[in-house]
Amino acid sequence: MTSTEHSESVSASADFGLLSPQWVGSAVAEATSDSAVLTAMVDVEVALVRAYETLGIAPAGMSVIVRAVADTAPFDLADIALRARSGGNPVIPLVKDLRAAVAAANADAASWVHRGATSQDILDTALMLVASRSIALILADAEACVHALAGLADHHRRSIMAARTLTQHGVPTTFGLKAAGWLGGVSEARKRLASTQFPVQWGGAGGTQASFEMLGGAGTGARLSDAIAATIGLASPPMPWQTQRAPVTRVGDALATLLDALGTVSSDVLVLARPEIAELSEPSSPGRGGSSAMPQKQNPILSVLIQSAARKAPGLAAELHRSANAVDERPDGAWHVEWQSLRELLRLAGGATAIAAELLAGLVVHPDAMLRNLRSSGPLIVAERLMLEFGPVVGSARMQELVSQTAADPGSDLAGALRAEPALEGVSNATIEEALYPIAYLGDAELLIDRALAAAVLEVQS
Amino acid sequence: MTSTEHSESVSASADFGLLSPQWVGSAVAEATSDSAVLTAMVDVEVALVRAYETLGIAPAGMSVIVRAVADTAPFDLADIALRARSGGNPVIPLVKDLRAAVAAANADAASWVHRGATSQDILDTALMLVASRSIALILADAEACVHALAGLADHHRRSIMAARTLTQHGVPTTFGLKAAGWLGGVSEARKRLASTQFPVQWGGAGGTQASFEMLGGAGTGARLSDAIAATIGLASPPMPWQTQRAPVTRVGDALATLLDALGTVSSDVLVLARPEIAELSEPSSPGRGGSSAMPQKQNPILSVLIQSAARKAPGLAAELHRSANAVDERPDGAWHVEWQSLRELLRLAGGATAIAAELLAGLVVHPDAMLRNLRSSGPLIVAERLMLEFGPVVGSARMQELVSQTAADPGSDLAGALRAEPALEGVSNATIEEALYPIAYLGDAELLIDRALAAAVLEVQS
Amino acid sequence: MTSTEHSESVSASADFGLLSPQWVGSAVAEATSDSAVLTAMVDVEVALVRAYETLGIAPAGMSVIVRAVADTAPFDLADIALRARSGGNPVIPLVKDLRAAVAAANADAASWVHRGATSQDILDTALMLVASRSIALILADAEACVHALAGLADHHRRSIMAARTLTQHGVPTTFGLKAAGWLGGVSEARKRLASTQFPVQWGGAGGTQASFEMLGGAGTGARLSDAIAATIGLASPPMPWQTQRAPVTRVGDALATLLDALGTVSSDVLVLARPEIAELSEPSSPGRGGSSAMPQKQNPILSVLIQSAARKAPGLAAELHRSANAVDERPDGAWHVEWQSLRELLRLAGGATAIAAELLAGLVVHPDAMLRNLRSSGPLIVAERLMLEFGPVVGSARMQELVSQTAADPGSDLAGALRAEPALEGVSNATIEEALYPIAYLGDAELLIDRALAAAVLEVQS
Amino acid sequence: MTSTEHSESVSASADFGLLSPQWVGSAVAEATSDSAVLTAMVDVEVALVRAYETLGIAPAGMSVIVRAVADTAPFDLADIALRARSGGNPVIPLVKDLRAAVAAANADAASWVHRGATSQDILDTALMLVASRSIALILADAEACVHALAGLADHHRRSIMAARTLTQHGVPTTFGLKAAGWLGGVSEARKRLASTQFPVQWGGAGGTQASFEMLGGAGTGARLSDAIAATIGLASPPMPWQTQRAPVTRVGDALATLLDALGTVSSDVLVLARPEIAELSEPSSPGRGGSSAMPQKQNPILSVLIQSAARKAPGLAAELHRSANAVDERPDGAWHVEWQSLRELLRLAGGATAIAAELLAGLVVHPDAMLRNLRSSGPLIVAERLMLEFGPVVGSARMQELVSQTAADPGSDLAGALRAEPALEGVSNATIEEALYPIAYLGDAELLIDRALAAAVLEVQS
Repeated sequence: MTSTEHSESVSASADFGLLSPQWVGSAVAEATSDSAVLTAMVDVEVALVRAYETLGIAPAGMSVIVRAVADTAPFDLADIALRARSGGNPVIPLVKDLRAAVAAANADAASWVHRGATSQDILDTALMLVASRSIALILADAEACVHALAGLADHHRRSIMAARTLTQHGVPTTFGLKAAGWLGGVSEARKRLASTQFPVQWGGAGGTQASFEMLGGAGTGARLSDAIAATIGLASPPMPWQTQRAPVTRVGDALATLLDALGTVSSDVLVLARPEIAELSEPSSPGRGGSSAMPQKQNPILSVLIQSAARKAPGLAAELHRSANAVDERPDGAWHVEWQSLRELLRLAGGATAIAAELLAGLVVHPDAMLRNLRSSGPLIVAERLMLEFGPVVGSARMQELVSQTAADPGSDLAGALRAEPALEGVSNATIEEALYPIAYLGDAELLIDRALAAAVLEVQS
Repeated sequence: MTSTEHSESVSASADFGLLSPQWVGSAVAEATSDSAVLTAMVDVEVALVRAYETLGIAPAGMSVIVRAVADTAPFDLADIALRARSGGNPVIPLVKDLRAAVAAANADAASWVHRGATSQDILDTALMLVASRSIALILADAEACVHALAGLADHHRRSIMAARTLTQHGVPTTFGLKAAGWLGGVSEARKRLASTQFPVQWGGAGGTQASFEMLGGAGTGARLSDAIAATIGLASPPMPWQTQRAPVTRVGDALATLLDALGTVSSDVLVLARPEIAELSEPSSPGRGGSSAMPQKQNPILSVLIQSAARKAPGLAAELHRSANAVDERPDGAWHVEWQSLRELLRLAGGATAIAAELLAGLVVHPDAMLRNLRSSGPLIVAERLMLEFGPVVGSARMQELVSQTAADPGSDLAGALRAEPALEGVSNATIEEALYPIAYLGDAELLIDRALAAAVLEVQS
Repeated sequence: MTSTEHSESVSASADFGLLSPQWVGSAVAEATSDSAVLTAMVDVEVALVRAYETLGIAPAGMSVIVRAVADTAPFDLADIALRARSGGNPVIPLVKDLRAAVAAANADAASWVHRGATSQDILDTALMLVASRSIALILADAEACVHALAGLADHHRRSIMAARTLTQHGVPTTFGLKAAGWLGGVSEARKRLASTQFPVQWGGAGGTQASFEMLGGAGTGARLSDAIAATIGLASPPMPWQTQRAPVTRVGDALATLLDALGTVSSDVLVLARPEIAELSEPSSPGRGGSSAMPQKQNPILSVLIQSAARKAPGLAAELHRSANAVDERPDGAWHVEWQSLRELLRLAGGATAIAAELLAGLVVHPDAMLRNLRSSGPLIVAERLMLEFGPVVGSARMQELVSQTAADPGSDLAGALRAEPALEGVSNATIEEALYPIAYLGDAELLIDRALAAAVLEVQS
Repeated sequence: MTSTEHSESVSASADFGLLSPQWVGSAVAEATSDSAVLTAMVDVEVALVRAYETLGIAPAGMSVIVRAVADTAPFDLADIALRARSGGNPVIPLVKDLRAAVAAANADAASWVHRGATSQDILDTALMLVASRSIALILADAEACVHALAGLADHHRRSIMAARTLTQHGVPTTFGLKAAGWLGGVSEARKRLASTQFPVQWGGAGGTQASFEMLGGAGTGARLSDAIAATIGLASPPMPWQTQRAPVTRVGDALATLLDALGTVSSDVLVLARPEIAELSEPSSPGRGGSSAMPQKQNPILSVLIQSAARKAPGLAAELHRSANAVDERPDGAWHVEWQSLRELLRLAGGATAIAAELLAGLVVHPDAMLRNLRSSGPLIVAERLMLEFGPVVGSARMQELVSQTAADPGSDLAGALRAEPALEGVSNATIEEALYPIAYLGDAELLIDRALAAAVLEVQS
């Protein structure tokens, strides 16, 4: 088969992300590709040989040979994927190919490849490595989001808008405070993700580390775990976690939490960018947000993609939890569900965070529209205040009546009605006027923005 | 870029199914690949041009030109996938490339490409086409499962085994009846899947079919829908289903139901192939079920893969339902979740059904082990019968006592105790003996097998 | 304990629906209460005794006695619930109490209570009975929804509004067509639900119907199944479905499909009732939609409750599918998950459908606001048409340019620009004017409404 | 209505846990009942009045009056639940009833009830209080589990058994190490749950704390939050979390993680208590594990109930994540999904942990059966070792051949074959013998048990 033919046949069954605009082309897409997973498995196999050397169990020089062979070996991903069906995981065919390639160079070195290890050790550790590498990329984008959000919160301290509850105008707020809320969500989620640990899984065939003990004496499994962890930059746990899958669910929960926070941002943008509301616009870019039918369309496509990513995350994180209810020393199906679920979650988080960084860096805020929409509610936007301030004097039943009249007839003059209210005789017009200013009913919005900024700074530093 | 370089760069970010041994290499994997999705989108675009011709709106000959160009156009999947991000779906870049390629051959023909259509029309219809093509493959494998199961049910009418409830031995049953239960589940699910309709989606930009009406007068949208459906072998619905997504959820529910039934088969095989039970074995195949660490291993890998596929299905079908709670005339995120969820569900069903066909065709049944395990429960396996038969005479409290004594001391002689029971004085030893034969307590197992076989035959024919 | 004390202690641990405003107080809430489940279990037990009589196995008169005792027996629900823990299901303590109560009246009759049956037979059949009774209530409300929707679709044939895709204005549509889409979704879901079968589960301890065969000879299990089904109004299936749970998942899928369709209605209402859009209002009712803080609030609470019900449905339906991957002859956990999941799904569907019937009967439509919002997009709302009509003459790049200029500067005069366009020299002003009328670009909206009405009528009749 | 009538009518629609044997009657069931939720809401309302006093905003003595009235007020739960439909949450009717009751005692005090607060402040904070109280109960049971598991791990250091992977025997392990794995999972989950924070939610109507600022000046909202938190024992967060729902998802994730770990225990027990394996038995208790049909049945019902609870948890935790993708300042449906989802998750965790404590305290271990089952695999259980030890000498292909022959013919004499192997000529019989002892291939099992015990002790202390 020529390389052209091979390329075509590969294309015929391969996926390029055609149905995943949420993450195609992102850095995490590359960091989680089949090729990247294969690289990570090879990295773990090489780290094992090196660990044997470090512990004096294998002769020096073996790992360099394995590394060199692995770097140039023409692994055929599509073929390895197909052969993974026999044993149910890709480690078995990879080890066969790797051993053969190394053996062609050096038979001794080949004998140390995968020695004493089991497929789960390699695959679990490799997926942790893939997760760790992907999350480093995600964290960088999450920090960009945090910085952009901090800027928005600070800049829009006085951009007054309607707080909306159950879709309706409630009381006045500011866009700065809304951005501060987003900031709180994203920065806390970023912090949680940043503190996630990625432990090596190193148990041997049944979790007893017996093969390693046989090769190097008591404690060898734990020492190999430490050495491998040091080489590839993961953590070394007190025990193998063959059927105790909290290391996996914790990653999943943290990713879902980040996508929740980004999903909230996108939900708000999607509402506030509706043409009738028009308080926010997505950053424009030539050709972006277009339609195949309607030439005028400028769809908020960044938010749509973030939203669709956020919607899928909880289901995937839940699959990881379901797989964590595991039987025996390696379960009969649950383990196999994790791989693709974790990868898709990493990709969605990676894609969505990158898109969010772009969205937030260029988000266009329209304070004028915010003010116009707020004013459309007239004095009702401060009805809570009127009830609190004048209710004790006028009686809350009467205040409710006045408010309801205004709600029923938006053209009616609530200020006048208040001035005419007998019980408010002693209240100055200025007091009534002020009570009706939305800007005078922002409460502690600025103080809360300050608190959010302070907390986010602390969290980025931690 | 040479083709070799291209192949390498493609490999770097493409997926080959490395983490999906459940379906990699299956016929459905190919029928749902990015390439197959692209082909389906092109098929819909060509069918539209042809429909315009059929209706006399476009001049004759246009669709032949578009088809010919499309068949040789070097669509770059990876590139189209990347460009799909701008508008959030792959139709927009595909149409651009297709129009350009056709225009190079014939400008008139190019003007009819995608004319009046919207991205959703193309993508929804293309995914229905992909689903329809995939499900045809799945149904063939499901029929093979049905035939194998019918054979097992019929052949093992008298292979007596323990019915197990809440993991414990209950009463006697036969493997034939167990297989008949599997048969009922799979054949009913197959029937449901076979009756699924795959409607064209044809609404135009906002569901009014206005562009089509403009091009061809009243009713053109519906006539185009009919013509396209006829060309590509789908159904033509009474209305567009832009935000009424039951056509998608129905496919998802049917696929999940099939995977439930196959999952049940695999759950049973996984239990019954445990070495301590050993009533079933998977068909052996050189190298299959091996381990990278333990040379003796013969894992029931077919069942493991089916099980892991079955576990993922409900979550994916649920995502389709969530997307069916849709807003506006095209929702802002929900629609984008469907594509990959539906595809993964098709793949899992396709892979699992193919694997199940192989498993069931070669399933090794060990009636001797079934009998041995059944006997290990001694007379307790017929305790229900003893209670029913002798309880009214002896009193149920006393019968419970006798049974409990036997349960507490498996070596005790229940037959002797019954013979010695004063209240059973008039009951012959033969009657007591017969009451203790498990084979005499199979109830209507055979009759139920007959019913299951009859129902399955009817369903395959329907 | 006095009844007052009992009432208090019962209250201390009972649920009254405090956190479930989606369904509390609905007819389905009552039809699915613990008390209703107990009633259904008793109904099945009585039907069994009656079936034994019908088949001539039990002496005549037994079932009348059991029925009479059951109707007056002071079953203590809270106590039965507690005692259900021992065996893991409520049938065991119920049977004990029922037998004891009957025995106090008639020892013979007591001996026929639950004879030969197993807990699963009773509970599965009782839950099918509860589902059947609940779904009859749901269907009545769903029909009310269908009628109200048909009225809205018909009445608002010419209420022009913006079709929105990805949150932005696309092309003109009518509210009638939107309502027709809702109608299609709800009526199809109603039809599917109406065609759901509720089979008796009748397998005996291990699915062989052996106990029944022993009591009445070959075929007794099937005959009992038929007789019980006839008594309580369910279907009698060809086989027991102990671990083939499609009868349960089918109910779940149908309920989820109905909630998808109602969820879509509520999603649209929630957007269109936003104050800036204000195209729809919920029917008002004294005190409804209020807030504990903001006296002006009139929240669209009916839609909020429907929406929250619709959001929970897919997850519950998915649990039923997960439970359908069942092992042995009665699974070790999966079965126990079904009960509460199915009940909650019935309740959510029951509550949401009743609320939707109220919402749709009184939905307030504001055609003036629809028109105003549509006009705010100016000529861009017909940009698709301009592209289709003038693009071939002017060139699509130039048309896109004109449209983009208008989008960038909403005050610009697109009509004037078109008239000034050299390529459109020969096009009359009247033609250009008409192309810019939104009302002239409604396509086949009315025809589609007719189709939807016709289809819904057919479905309600079927 | 007399109290008896009321009790009856209440029973007709109330739930007593009839379908929830997983948690009915547990301490957490009571701590999460409607009555307990009402109590928590009242506690928050009283804490608010007290906070106003503490801050000098309300006159002293008000909160004592409110508390006293609340403690004796005859709140009608069923009625409040029904009235919750109008506004969509139970706070509104509760506040009305509470205000009226307090007003009857003291009008001034009534004016401070709920002053400035919004429903979400009360309900979110009350549910955090319910969660906090429930989790204190869960932690106590989780600690009992940890202690029991530590005992099992320590006691069974030398109880040798087969490690099973993908259902088949792999290598030898010990039950102590299996219990150590369970211990690691449960103790880590316990630790995570113990470190969960339960913050007060205190934002006022729109998150600006404006009502509080109006009543007490700048910073009043935050000071009230601090004071309320101090009174009811929760945390006071830097900002309100109206649409930033990580406090809720974090609780959900932690509960799901605990149920994963307990689910794993139950999965193992359910397999190992199968009669053919019989390595574990559940503690027996009179009447427990019985069946309504089969008198001999001793079902592992504790594990069945834990398993069914564990299966439901991931879906509920996922609903919390979905609700955390929230729009506006209070979302239009998502918030309402949280309440019941969180409560059910607390109940499942509460029930399952209590059941697990009972299961683990009395778990019956059968080391003899473990040994018997292990031995049934003959020398194949150490095939990995033979491959590692003799493979380099004999060649791995030849070793695989010898192992495969033994697997194919369990009666064959592998020891003899090894002794006869030319390449092993120089290896002593003793060496071969030792290589075949399973007990000699336990690796670092004990060391890992020590590590697990040490880690668990640290975690319980932390």
